[in-house]
Amino acid sequence: MSPTRIALIGIGKIARDQHVPTLAASLDFELVAGVTQHTPPERVPGFATIGEMMAAMPEVQAVSICTPPRGRLAIVAEALAHGLDVMIEKPPAATLCEAESFTELAREAGRVFYATWHSREAAAVEPARAWLKGRTIHRVAVNWKEDVRVWHPGQEWIWEPGIGVFDPGINALSVITHILPRAFMLERAELRFPANRAAPIAADLAFVDTSGVPIDVDFDFDQRGPQTWDIEVETDQGHLKLSMGASRMAIDGVAVEVGEEPEYTRLYRHFARLLANRQSDADLTPFRLVADAFLLGRRTEVQPFDWNG
Amino acid sequence: MSPTRIALIGIGKIARDQHVPTLAASLDFELVAGVTQHTPPERVPGFATIGEMMAAMPEVQAVSICTPPRGRLAIVAEALAHGLDVMIEKPPAATLCEAESFTELAREAGRVFYATWHSREAAAVEPARAWLKGRTIHRVAVNWKEDVRVWHPGQEWIWEPGIGVFDPGINALSVITHILPRAFMLERAELRFPANRAAPIAADLAFVDTSGVPIDVDFDFDQRGPQTWDIEVETDQGHLKLSMGASRMAIDGVAVEVGEEPEYTRLYRHFARLLANRQSDADLTPFRLVADAFLLGRRTEVQPFDWNG
Repeated sequence: MSPTRIALIGIGKIARDQHVPTLAASLDFELVAGVTQHTPPERVPGFATIGEMMAAMPEVQAVSICTPPRGRLAIVAEALAHGLDVMIEKPPAATLCEAESFTELAREAGRVFYATWHSREAAAVEPARAWLKGRTIHRVAVNWKEDVRVWHPGQEWIWEPGIGVFDPGINALSVITHILPRAFMLERAELRFPANRAAPIAADLAFVDTSGVPIDVDFDFDQRGPQTWDIEVETDQGHLKLSMGASRMAIDGVAVEVGEEPEYTRLYRHFARLLANRQSDADLTPFRLVADAFLLGRRTEVQPFDWNG
Repeated sequence: MSPTRIALIGIGKIARDQHVPTLAASLDFELVAGVTQHTPPERVPGFATIGEMMAAMPEVQAVSICTPPRGRLAIVAEALAHGLDVMIEKPPAATLCEAESFTELAREAGRVFYATWHSREAAAVEPARAWLKGRTIHRVAVNWKEDVRVWHPGQEWIWEPGIGVFDPGINALSVITHILPRAFMLERAELRFPANRAAPIAADLAFVDTSGVPIDVDFDFDQRGPQTWDIEVETDQGHLKLSMGASRMAIDGVAVEVGEEPEYTRLYRHFARLLANRQSDADLTPFRLVADAFLLGRRTEVQPFDWNG
């Protein structure tokens, strides 16, 4: 099959760091255009809107949307109106109702829609899911702790309401919603807001699955020293540990070989498969869990945040 | 058709005020049992659990769940496991993920599931929906303002996280999501929290529909003097006003006759129709809009709340 002619919508940090190089190396896709207010990548024609792009290049078949979550409804609607298949960076939207509407719009338009979760494509995720199948889970612990000053230096948008520590945290939620065998629900949450910011810098979340298994989640955006992106699952037949954002896996302390394939390589391969089968994949569960944390979470105020603190 | 044999699960204030008298007057239902920690209504046998009820009275066909939203998952799962059809009081659950799971469980069990919104059954709702059809809407304003001290005297549960002014407010959202022709999304929100409570006492919500029509919503739980439950819609062909919780309707200031049928009479008639057609009705949109308000809302602290203030 010839590669799908794809355009990137929104060419900021994540597009340049991940999408552009991944598409350059892909046999499934050809990056043919960009819609951006910035400079497009070299040798890729840039346009101000999807409409202008489609007028000039009606051969574009799909778009990958990497704009910030705010304001995506108009972009998704325009892409679908032009008959394009659509994938979107995480998180899917600024609000749940908006995210739900994408699925509805794509179904009405008869197009493929893929709400991506890049951490679900980390190398250890499928091996972990397979290993857990058939085992009895006793408890789950998630520790996702990083220093926002290192990973998002000066990016003030991260403190918009609804984001904060859930920007990395939703990655952990996207992994555990995929590897664990049963749905789980929030029991209680504590969200810690810096006195001078509108989003939490830390969160403690207590979930329980439909069989009563406790899932304790600890998110921290103010972690100095070693950074931690770990998921541990205690079962009747051993202890599973995922580390480094689910790119490493160990059973009872012994490392398991899971390969080194990058997340975005797998992400675009999954999109290619969805396109081949004319299927959509739009699991909003991680986003719903975040909304539940804001809905049910008790808030405490902590010391003011300082980028240079 | 002979009436459906129904049981009430959770017999507190709302069950006694509305469900028991409505069922007593219904030709579609016969109230045959109650599951409650309190005293059941006169001549209605009471049980501690659904399991005990079904062991003693396997003829029960459906349940109406009026327990608080917290802890409903186990109740809904038990009812479905016994082959019962299910309706639930608003709000559907404590969290969105829990509410979503009900629909899934009911579909798997092949039972009818009805997530009720009693305000959608107010007398003016269907006439308003019909009148709006085909008209061009310019803007919508909702003012839902009541005194929590009058309507929920001493009920401290109303200040649990996720509730507060959204307990009445979700009724207004259930009406506008039904009468307006297009989906709408939250643009921004301000939530006002009393310094000594974990839920908002007031909220300003700015929505916009998929055609760009602004919908401004003002919720207040600290309203002294006249109480207000109004929805106004400005159109190209006149001004619609719903008042008294959508039980009254006026066009350009002139009252329109809409009848006096009580909300819960229509609610149970709708459940009877769903049972006859073996259909479910589980629109979670009002609950999603509330979660979006908590997700996206900026919080301000206001003076401490005092029941005797």
